Amino acid sequence: MFTLSLIGIGSGNPDHVTVQGIKALNAADLVLIPLKGAEKTELAALRHQICDVHLSNPKTKIAAFDLPVRDTANLSYHHGVNDWHDAIAEVWAKNIAAHPDAQNVAMLIWGDPSLYDSALRIAARLNPAPNVQVVPGITAIQALTAAHAIPFNDIGAPVVVTTGRQLRDHGFPTDADSAVIMLDGQCSFDTLPGEAFDIWWGAYVGMDQQVLRAGRLQDVADDIKAARTEARQRYGWVMDVYLLRRR
Amino acid sequence: MFTLSLIGIGSGNPDHVTVQGIKALNAADLVLIPLKGAEKTELAALRHQICDVHLSNPKTKIAAFDLPVRDTANLSYHHGVNDWHDAIAEVWAKNIAAHPDAQNVAMLIWGDPSLYDSALRIAARLNPAPNVQVVPGITAIQALTAAHAIPFNDIGAPVVVTTGRQLRDHGFPTDADSAVIMLDGQCSFDTLPGEAFDIWWGAYVGMDQQVLRAGRLQDVADDIKAARTEARQRYGWVMDVYLLRRR
Repeated sequence: MFTLSLIGIGSGNPDHVTVQGIKALNAADLVLIPLKGAEKTELAALRHQICDVHLSNPKTKIAAFDLPVRDTANLSYHHGVNDWHDAIAEVWAKNIAAHPDAQNVAMLIWGDPSLYDSALRIAARLNPAPNVQVVPGITAIQALTAAHAIPFNDIGAPVVVTTGRQLRDHGFPTDADSAVIMLDGQCSFDTLPGEAFDIWWGAYVGMDQQVLRAGRLQDVADDIKAARTEARQRYGWVMDVYLLRRR
Repeated sequence: MFTLSLIGIGSGNPDHVTVQGIKALNAADLVLIPLKGAEKTELAALRHQICDVHLSNPKTKIAAFDLPVRDTANLSYHHGVNDWHDAIAEVWAKNIAAHPDAQNVAMLIWGDPSLYDSALRIAARLNPAPNVQVVPGITAIQALTAAHAIPFNDIGAPVVVTTGRQLRDHGFPTDADSAVIMLDGQCSFDTLPGEAFDIWWGAYVGMDQQVLRAGRLQDVADDIKAARTEARQRYGWVMDVYLLRRR
């Protein structure tokens, strides 16, 4: 049985990596670096940068590989995701099998392996099953709240962590006055009454190109949409996250 | 204007500290280490351990100080918290004023400064107002999900982050099938129908004395309560966190 270490590396700042992450990286025989999507150059570059700076074990090999593209024409979201995870698991298995001596395989996971990430689900598809070790990493949520120097929660109060799709389909949560929205490609805050919420928004949080906006939603929504469009044009991709609180 | 750096140090594992945290620590003129409550020996020891291992700047001073005790007899929860934060802010101000040359004061915050932590609210009470810098750290939530090697969320689904008090007073959230419960001194999972939930529980997550339990709530609730009582007796304090998912 081999060990698969899923190492959270934080949300784009190479200094987000933890001491535990650096140790796990250097304990690996093989580091697999997946390449995917429009943002692949920068995400792969971040992983290579972390290896350049923190990997001092000369026996650790690094292998980059291409990921399959998700079939977005598949109408069922969950079915599409499952097929996609199956396809990725095949590619992982093939690349791991190409290094039969590797007893400890590491993958550097953007953010934290637990949060809106597929690595744990893909790892569960591998056969033979690896011993999965998770090293927690700084999430985009924390990079956002740190950048704005704001609390995640009001005193003793709940927060919902959810997606843009959920916000569009189900409205603002009823259980909480605060919500963090992730995976939102469509500025779904636009579906809310702008006078009733404050927003703290960030794109590329933690990275050099970080862009931040905050204020009453109705006052800053247009500015956020313009900043997002401009950033996407400039860099070719954008990843953003925001916290909403009822006023 | 002085800088106050609130450095998240993770949930008890000294290796949770990030490279950014180590850099911020070494950029400080003064590190303030608060002492409080039953767990004070171990929490202060962790902070001193992090300084011992990672602080290499000979000019950085370390000053430990006692925190006021919260008036739990105060009937209004929020009013009690506010008075307590006022009292802590006075103690911070006095200790910072005792080092008039310190332009960059750091505090090592358990977990992450955004998540159920009072440091940002206390910092906002300081006069003159400091320039507050936040360095994100690994939270107990992430230490829990990493220890169990489980995702935080189901695919594309929301999660509520809340407290034991909220769970007791308002029941399981209606917006989500998953919830993380923090600050729960009373095993509030006991108020739920045990056949309807799975639980992943951990005490001292990330620390050497970490204790984990997982399973269908009705099958493991008694074991968790016994493990919690035993741990509390052995160590004199206990800090736990758990994730619940509807079956």
